Amino acid sequence: MTTYSSLPVPPMSIRFDPAGGTLQPEGPTLTRRMSDLEGLFRDHAAWEQAVADGDPVVYSVVSSRVPEVERELPQSITTIQPGSTAGELWMTKGHQHPNHQGEIYLGISGHGGLLMFNGTETEWVDMTPGTIGYMPPGWAHRSINVGDEPYSFLAVYPGGAGHDYGWVLEHGMGRRVLAGETGVEFVDYSAD
Amino acid sequence: MTTYSSLPVPPMSIRFDPAGGTLQPEGPTLTRRMSDLEGLFRDHAAWEQAVADGDPVVYSVVSSRVPEVERELPQSITTIQPGSTAGELWMTKGHQHPNHQGEIYLGISGHGGLLMFNGTETEWVDMTPGTIGYMPPGWAHRSINVGDEPYSFLAVYPGGAGHDYGWVLEHGMGRRVLAGETGVEFVDYSAD
Repeated sequence: MTTYSSLPVPPMSIRFDPAGGTLQPEGPTLTRRMSDLEGLFRDHAAWEQAVADGDPVVYSVVSSRVPEVERELPQSITTIQPGSTAGELWMTKGHQHPNHQGEIYLGISGHGGLLMFNGTETEWVDMTPGTIGYMPPGWAHRSINVGDEPYSFLAVYPGGAGHDYGWVLEHGMGRRVLAGETGVEFVDYSAD
Repeated sequence: MTTYSSLPVPPMSIRFDPAGGTLQPEGPTLTRRMSDLEGLFRDHAAWEQAVADGDPVVYSVVSSRVPEVERELPQSITTIQPGSTAGELWMTKGHQHPNHQGEIYLGISGHGGLLMFNGTETEWVDMTPGTIGYMPPGWAHRSINVGDEPYSFLAVYPGGAGHDYGWVLEHGMGRRVLAGETGVEFVDYSAD
């Protein structure tokens, strides 16, 4: 007999509002402030200062009620605020799926980027509304707001894939993404 | 060492055009004519007549290049033409995932419905642009065009879930969906 770590969900209708960045009915919401991003920015002192200066919300993730369990296919909308810390553009923590499975992001508003790293190579997908960024199994991924307004995307991912945030702290993401004079600039993690 | 039935795909950017109903770069496209839908309409003689009368395209499915293999997360856009055969609204064949896994459909144009059946219960999700229909693992699903123009939706599904079309021929979908005087009407398969 099949056992479930949480109850399976019934068929459901979920209202996706790209303009509002919402999914209804709403499931869990997660808010990441600057203090949640320890160890991720190159300039640790600038990060500490940003935490001291009001600890701003960097991004939030609203989810539908489809749970993160094996065989389900949950969805969420992430909204990253515009900003930079010592020139490094605001970003998500980034993660690897311990159970390697593919994932998609669909850009819905603003201008962002999807940075992927498989431990050796890095890839970058420029994300605007209507772009689907495909993350194959085995590629860690991080999202970055490269514009002047909030950047939002819809994520669809297998519920049993999991999230390993420690992988990024240990291995990095190959490149850092900076606000350059004429656009986005990339620097190697090895330059830290 | 991992072996692949087809080569894994690299990270990629896929352009999703809801207005055109396209994914670029494009992968395989599948076209279902009336003659491909044998055994699905209640009125067999009317189905035969429709095949004889030009065998119209009932629906098409365009896919991205993400392959239908274990651990990948492919996407496709299905467009169902408006129409009915002996009152039964045009529909997809419907299928069950032999490897039970969840799937989502996102309505992008026109007006449709998502019929789900788990062998005992049926569920219906009215699909308009911005509706996400969630199909939990174990629920067979069929899409129906209930409007006067083409109905299109984006599907996202685990590549290893598979498609069992025979399940629907054997078990039905619980209900049939007809064009009624004042909207959609449902009748039990048991009334056949």
